Amino acid sequence: MHTFKELVDSFETFFTRKHFPPAPATLYEPGEYFLSRGGKRIRPVMCLMGNELFDAIQPDSWAVATAIELFHNFTLIHDDIMDAAPLRRGMETVHVKYGESTALLAGDVMMIRAYEQLSSVQTQYLPRILQLFNKTAREVCEGQQLDMDFEKAPSVPLNDYIHMITLKTSVLLAASLQTGAVLGGASEGNCQHMYEFGKNLGIAFQVQDDYLDAFGDPEKFGKEVGGDIRQNKKTFLLLHALETASPEQRKQLQELMQENLPDKVQQVLQLFRACNVDAWATKLKDQYLQTALHHLDAIAVVSARKKPLRDLAEFLIHREY
Amino acid sequence: MHTFKELVDSFETFFTRKHFPPAPATLYEPGEYFLSRGGKRIRPVMCLMGNELFDAIQPDSWAVATAIELFHNFTLIHDDIMDAAPLRRGMETVHVKYGESTALLAGDVMMIRAYEQLSSVQTQYLPRILQLFNKTAREVCEGQQLDMDFEKAPSVPLNDYIHMITLKTSVLLAASLQTGAVLGGASEGNCQHMYEFGKNLGIAFQVQDDYLDAFGDPEKFGKEVGGDIRQNKKTFLLLHALETASPEQRKQLQELMQENLPDKVQQVLQLFRACNVDAWATKLKDQYLQTALHHLDAIAVVSARKKPLRDLAEFLIHREY
Repeated sequence: MHTFKELVDSFETFFTRKHFPPAPATLYEPGEYFLSRGGKRIRPVMCLMGNELFDAIQPDSWAVATAIELFHNFTLIHDDIMDAAPLRRGMETVHVKYGESTALLAGDVMMIRAYEQLSSVQTQYLPRILQLFNKTAREVCEGQQLDMDFEKAPSVPLNDYIHMITLKTSVLLAASLQTGAVLGGASEGNCQHMYEFGKNLGIAFQVQDDYLDAFGDPEKFGKEVGGDIRQNKKTFLLLHALETASPEQRKQLQELMQENLPDKVQQVLQLFRACNVDAWATKLKDQYLQTALHHLDAIAVVSARKKPLRDLAEFLIHREY
Repeated sequence: MHTFKELVDSFETFFTRKHFPPAPATLYEPGEYFLSRGGKRIRPVMCLMGNELFDAIQPDSWAVATAIELFHNFTLIHDDIMDAAPLRRGMETVHVKYGESTALLAGDVMMIRAYEQLSSVQTQYLPRILQLFNKTAREVCEGQQLDMDFEKAPSVPLNDYIHMITLKTSVLLAASLQTGAVLGGASEGNCQHMYEFGKNLGIAFQVQDDYLDAFGDPEKFGKEVGGDIRQNKKTFLLLHALETASPEQRKQLQELMQENLPDKVQQVLQLFRACNVDAWATKLKDQYLQTALHHLDAIAVVSARKKPLRDLAEFLIHREY
């Protein structure tokens, strides 16, 4: 068994190479540029961990983990175009550096490259892996579309927001774990628990993300807190505040969102606290974490094997950065 | 055995349905809109014909043909964004009607839908079909990138242009036939000849396309001739003219391209004729057609079964519209 950290290092070493042919460089160089800038590699490592819960890591898991990381990077390249984002991981986005048309095509070809990785999976697993990957990939696109729709919507019910977050973020974490479990020879029931563990963990992770952006310790958080508030981004916190505020508080919040006063972040945070948004978010996150851990507990494998996944869950949810 | 026309009708009936779930409609409605506007359906029907050359059409061929048509439509949606094209098939392009971000995502999800079709192929054929599809999909992207690169290049050698056209257009025709052949149980050698038939036919088809745009009979052609000339589009004809013109003719041609005189098309055509571009193109097209037919002849199947493919080749190459 390996820890999350050990597997991140192993995957990083494995993944650090050229992923495309040399020519045409105008198409493939942008993809190599984006991949070489690193990333947290959470998803591919979850595939390896999902496998190792049941068996020694199979060669197929490295191929599927690579496919998952390529797919994730494809979504980032295209999302950056849609969001007109100038920077990612502190460096120029692909469309800024190489132009939108090339970024569009570099994304397309990175998705195809992901499927090239999948095509080498042993025949006995291939249809199932491919079907799970396809379904997940389509759901991620649905999540991105809903996210864009919601940004334009005057109000979004919290349940719809959770559905969007599930599609945009959680299903890929869930599928990463489940593909690993499939390749580890897990039973259908265990595969399903693995998926639900990842899905609920993903939602808890997103709640924590939103929480840190507002209430994080600036010294530990690494970047300025309040970015979401300044951009009026629809987050768990804002949607809950809008749902539970008194008419007077709601009016204040909406005025703060329309103006851009220098102390906007502070004032919004004050309102959030008055609405108990911070305590609510902590509770919501813990609920999803508990549901996730319940599914992990239900997997029919000796408890000791589950330690790396339990540690990962704690790390992702209780991080302060 | 069926004729090309019969299979187009059958495929059209089979393909005329909803291809996506109803929700989120903001993502899937644009895809349905684009697919419902029809198309020549040449590629999926080539898959069916490639199968029927060797055996009765298998259920898998309908799934693969559908995947190929979905993939082709994905490339059109994204190409239209890159080309900033307002119209296709006389109707608004997806990005004009629904916005660029949605068009980008609608294209992405159409490609994923193509892979969902592939995932149902019988396990014994799945790896081979998937690998051929992936390789082809990636090459089509390479072709599109080279096409964009060439539009900006001051000059393009004819061989580089043929390489680009092969990737952008021919390999998908070739792979369509070959996937059908694989599903029809063809031998490796026969599959290879099928591929080469499609590849060479595709190049001949593009030469004819360029030829008709310049020298077509306006009454039969259906649209105004000279569109490529007015846009200074790099075509077989222009590249050959630039390569073979006298210094004086080349200077004239370059001047005509820089200005936009009312009689530009007529004057360029006069220069094309003076350089024998029309006769050269006809000869080039016939060379590729002969190579294609040579590969069709070499397939170890009774000659009578080849009639539909031979008819298709004649139809595609000798069409006047």
